[in-house]
Amino acid sequence: MFAVLSLDMGAAMKTLVLTLDLIGTFVFALSGAAAGVRRRVDIFGVLVLSFVAATSGGIVRDLLIGATPPAAISDWRYLGVSLLAGLTIFFWHPTVERLRTPVQVFDAAGLALFCVAGAQKALVFGLEPEMAALLGMLTGIGGGIARDVLLNEVPSVMRADVYAVAALAGATVVVAGDALSLPTAPVACAGAALCFGLRMAALRYDWQLPVAPIQDAGEANDGTADRRDSR
Amino acid sequence: MFAVLSLDMGAAMKTLVLTLDLIGTFVFALSGAAAGVRRRVDIFGVLVLSFVAATSGGIVRDLLIGATPPAAISDWRYLGVSLLAGLTIFFWHPTVERLRTPVQVFDAAGLALFCVAGAQKALVFGLEPEMAALLGMLTGIGGGIARDVLLNEVPSVMRADVYAVAALAGATVVVAGDALSLPTAPVACAGAALCFGLRMAALRYDWQLPVAPIQDAGEANDGTADRRDSR
Amino acid sequence: MFAVLSLDMGAAMKTLVLTLDLIGTFVFALSGAAAGVRRRVDIFGVLVLSFVAATSGGIVRDLLIGATPPAAISDWRYLGVSLLAGLTIFFWHPTVERLRTPVQVFDAAGLALFCVAGAQKALVFGLEPEMAALLGMLTGIGGGIARDVLLNEVPSVMRADVYAVAALAGATVVVAGDALSLPTAPVACAGAALCFGLRMAALRYDWQLPVAPIQDAGEANDGTADRRDSR
Repeated sequence: MFAVLSLDMGAAMKTLVLTLDLIGTFVFALSGAAAGVRRRVDIFGVLVLSFVAATSGGIVRDLLIGATPPAAISDWRYLGVSLLAGLTIFFWHPTVERLRTPVQVFDAAGLALFCVAGAQKALVFGLEPEMAALLGMLTGIGGGIARDVLLNEVPSVMRADVYAVAALAGATVVVAGDALSLPTAPVACAGAALCFGLRMAALRYDWQLPVAPIQDAGEANDGTADRRDSR
Repeated sequence: MFAVLSLDMGAAMKTLVLTLDLIGTFVFALSGAAAGVRRRVDIFGVLVLSFVAATSGGIVRDLLIGATPPAAISDWRYLGVSLLAGLTIFFWHPTVERLRTPVQVFDAAGLALFCVAGAQKALVFGLEPEMAALLGMLTGIGGGIARDVLLNEVPSVMRADVYAVAALAGATVVVAGDALSLPTAPVACAGAALCFGLRMAALRYDWQLPVAPIQDAGEANDGTADRRDSR
Repeated sequence: MFAVLSLDMGAAMKTLVLTLDLIGTFVFALSGAAAGVRRRVDIFGVLVLSFVAATSGGIVRDLLIGATPPAAISDWRYLGVSLLAGLTIFFWHPTVERLRTPVQVFDAAGLALFCVAGAQKALVFGLEPEMAALLGMLTGIGGGIARDVLLNEVPSVMRADVYAVAALAGATVVVAGDALSLPTAPVACAGAALCFGLRMAALRYDWQLPVAPIQDAGEANDGTADRRDSR
């Protein structure tokens, strides 16, 4: 997925980036597997959720820009890393639960890497800047959306604290740097750092996005009346 | 999306058609945003639902016929119009609720435009006539299905009054006109008018499609017994 | 879908294989329509579910490997067979319910055919062996997943008895045979037989895949405490 970025990097940087990309895949796969275990899905379902959560964002991006077959389908390492994460959760779920904080840090790191890589790839395929930023964000959040749809839940990214916005900010840095013809590698690092920083700050200070006020409560049938002041 | 239609039209017709296409996008985006506001989704989720409801039908059609990147991804205006609709609903939701009837009229107009444009584009990409009609229908109804899946609901198009059938009728007119080598523009207008008319009549007279009778009520666990005579 | 297989077969074999492929489509469409009837979806929804359940696996596979337009979109027979199955269920639902056992047998046959055909096609498009096996499995199970997502349920393949594993086993035989340069037709038959046999044995002996143990029941909010020993 980072092949694009690595064109102007040395071999050491290339190895670093591939490592980080697979770490991102691993961490997102952990989140998918953990969600499956909590819902009492069987081991096959857990492995499917691992792979789906880790790769859906990138797969949808690749389909949209016409890069078939998607990297996650043509390179077996994404599958391998996802299955490893799924088995880890399946057998050591209680231990991983105790590591919730480090997992959230890794998750923010994965989000940062994916949004930057997604925007970069969309630019290379000739998309307009604002759509490249959108696809970068989609690469970061797509896996979580697919995971939640399969588990029959409203995607948490639509309700949760600043998550997609952090991904959009990181992708926007990449697109802006490209428009200004800045060197690729430092801009990618800056975008990833911005996304990571925003996400960690949102977790630490419990930032939330606003919800629209509703006047006719009759429309809302899920007890929202007592939450109306939570804005 | 209407580039195909506009090949044999004058500049005035072309502008008209683009305007109508963006109106359709705007109205479908309104429906997505309104659904999100009712479910207490945050502002980001509302904007995502706007874009998804307005563009999913066209995006899936373009992926299926191999027209990548899809128009809604390569042309920023679809995104801009969707975001505008989402912000409108987010800040003036109560006002828009009062305009329910005009919104339904616009929604029928959007459906009419999308089904005709979708069928036309599928024909240009060489699909068989019956599949082009199917893709025209999908272009019209796809956005609503994606919106409902993201909000964790059974797509309303599967339960609601004559909606998809109106889209299929409009798309069929386009395909039939193409098979008979009739001129494109009048046929497109006829198809759109049929779809619009059917949809408005269904709303006014509360037309419903039949539901299959169920004999062993034990299978149905959601209180359908008292609805059995609603057929 | 079996065009690939049929290159080294005689005309009789080719006809047989096409017949079996359409039988698979028909049976999967039956499963989609029956699920829709149980949920009180209208006739249009039933037909949509028929088509979706019968063709989604193959459509997603074709999108992923870049074979656009997908076979189910470019060949009207898949649509025709799906609609026939949907109408059959809609009008003769009680009769079909009584035939549950034969339907399960046909469903296992459809699964066997689809996983083999899917793996074969992915190999022809140059995918790595392990990904071709994965896509073969996806071809078999994708329709059922899409059906359940549209009906707002957690896909049954994630909870149910040995189903996806049977599809994966059948697809793996095809991939292994290809790696060993064995003749295509016998290997395809062996893969289909393995998948069919595993699935029928799982139904007969009620095989289940394991579920991970949960220690902190506070996480699970759907009454899983009393199911903890069901492993």
